[in-house]
Amino acid sequence: MNGVKPLLAITMGDPAGVGPEICLQALHSKTVNEACRPIIFGDAGILSDVGEATGQNTDFQVITVEAFENMESDQIDGPTVLDFSNIDRADFQSSVISAKTGKASYEYIIKAIELANSGQVHGIATAPINKYALSLAGIDFPGHTEILEKFTDSEDVCMLLTSEKISCALVTTHIGLHEVADVLTEEKILKVIQLTDGAMSGILERPPKIGVLGLNPHCGESGLFGRNEESRIIEPAIKKAAQLGLNVDGPLSPDTAFVLGNLETFDAFVCMYHDQGLIPLKMLAFDSAVNVTLGLPIIRTSVDHGTALDIAWRGVAKSSSLIESILLASLMCRSQSNSE
Amino acid sequence: MNGVKPLLAITMGDPAGVGPEICLQALHSKTVNEACRPIIFGDAGILSDVGEATGQNTDFQVITVEAFENMESDQIDGPTVLDFSNIDRADFQSSVISAKTGKASYEYIIKAIELANSGQVHGIATAPINKYALSLAGIDFPGHTEILEKFTDSEDVCMLLTSEKISCALVTTHIGLHEVADVLTEEKILKVIQLTDGAMSGILERPPKIGVLGLNPHCGESGLFGRNEESRIIEPAIKKAAQLGLNVDGPLSPDTAFVLGNLETFDAFVCMYHDQGLIPLKMLAFDSAVNVTLGLPIIRTSVDHGTALDIAWRGVAKSSSLIESILLASLMCRSQSNSE
Repeated sequence: MNGVKPLLAITMGDPAGVGPEICLQALHSKTVNEACRPIIFGDAGILSDVGEATGQNTDFQVITVEAFENMESDQIDGPTVLDFSNIDRADFQSSVISAKTGKASYEYIIKAIELANSGQVHGIATAPINKYALSLAGIDFPGHTEILEKFTDSEDVCMLLTSEKISCALVTTHIGLHEVADVLTEEKILKVIQLTDGAMSGILERPPKIGVLGLNPHCGESGLFGRNEESRIIEPAIKKAAQLGLNVDGPLSPDTAFVLGNLETFDAFVCMYHDQGLIPLKMLAFDSAVNVTLGLPIIRTSVDHGTALDIAWRGVAKSSSLIESILLASLMCRSQSNSE
Repeated sequence: MNGVKPLLAITMGDPAGVGPEICLQALHSKTVNEACRPIIFGDAGILSDVGEATGQNTDFQVITVEAFENMESDQIDGPTVLDFSNIDRADFQSSVISAKTGKASYEYIIKAIELANSGQVHGIATAPINKYALSLAGIDFPGHTEILEKFTDSEDVCMLLTSEKISCALVTTHIGLHEVADVLTEEKILKVIQLTDGAMSGILERPPKIGVLGLNPHCGESGLFGRNEESRIIEPAIKKAAQLGLNVDGPLSPDTAFVLGNLETFDAFVCMYHDQGLIPLKMLAFDSAVNVTLGLPIIRTSVDHGTALDIAWRGVAKSSSLIESILLASLMCRSQSNSE
């Protein structure tokens, strides 16, 4: 390492979306460069083009993938682009995803995972890809998480959305609401509590206090409605987590879980389904939440938004969520390296 | 009517809970008395006792149920208690519900409904009852709503939680999360949109703008998860509501439905399940939300909290939610009387 600054792969995302412009903004952010050595995994030509289109600084060091793989990591410093040269501005229209943009975005993330696995980068922060573009390219993954699971041989990963005001980990994510109750298990909930504890310990540099939510209105009111998921599944998971020494409480009645007192009491909430956690999170931290994938052998954070095709390449996209993602990944890298 | 001030029945709720003390506070509230003529449907002895225990003003006019039924409504003015004389302080301990407290609380609400049906009171605001106390008394209703449905011969009622910051109507309420997707129908959703429109028109004195939420994460992303509830059930209901001339939009992605811009845009949200609406509502309006039962032939509002046995009879319970309920019921009475 160059001093204590981790080397961070920032994948450019889908070239037709907001990824290139927010990556370029982040690459020149002073806070980002103080926290880490950022390398955009993307296309140097596209980044120059988007910089011109949006009136941004386009100074950066360009290195090829091959050169990078043969370098020592301490040779990297200053704004750097790892150039895949895999897409040309003439190949696509801004705001229009295609097989070509999907394929390019996939190549950045695959290489970033490979280099994180081998330790040549210390973590990954990802700009948004588009699942339809992936499928146009014949790539059969619904999103980043599944790609990361596959190429790091991981199971039981989960999503933690974190911000200064509120942090929520999700036991289930992108499934229909009708399926939620059926797929919850004590083991999954316990696993998410443990992953959340591990991640938040690194972020806060102290053991976190975790609140676990119930599933049904008012936690089912002692079995009056629902199928006793609270007493059958959630309470046993909380009890086991407590026996493992974790500071955990619940099940909390979902409707009052996020009132002010609880936001002060709990460092993170373990939520049973997507909107149980994301409704309060988006209300309190719409622009600043970072998505962290827990349960991987590598550090990976992500923006909390999509490709935003409607505003791409116009210079209006905000890089705040990407910058927060990079800062958090940097912090997690330092915390991991301190605990090693 | 006495001028334009409606005559409002305020049911005392379970004597062992916070009902008596918050009713007494509300009875002497200046704003309450400016907005309506409040009558507590309860027990005069208990109200005197709780007033002494909590250091409150215990001045009020006492009339018997029989006398009230034979009076003209314009004879009522000033803080009034309709005395059921149906429970004695020696019959129960504060904070401990029982068959006796449950039975008493039931009698207040039954009489209030009867007198609202006959027009002798103009609306009802209810303090909290306790479903376990009801069941100890052999009364087989889970709560106020079901009692109101039965004794007003109503079907298709729904719950609207309203406050200055946010208002949410619920298509489903106290059922297990696993049942939600199965019980939603286009008809139910349309009905709730219409009831919400009617109630909010009265409250705001103009046609409201209503946002209708989806069911699944990101509204199912065009069928990627869920069972197309958005396109099969929710969108058709919205379309029909629009055809009826209502100002309605959706389905909104649940996670971003309550971000700041939407809170400014929409006067009310129609939510598919309890916690989809109550999580944001309790975050934004914990102490001030009022519960309105829509779909009844009478006006009924309620506090947005339970009997709070842990703090009952100690003088610490807040009457803000009850007072807001009374003010809203008064406004709805005036609005209804203006439109007649």
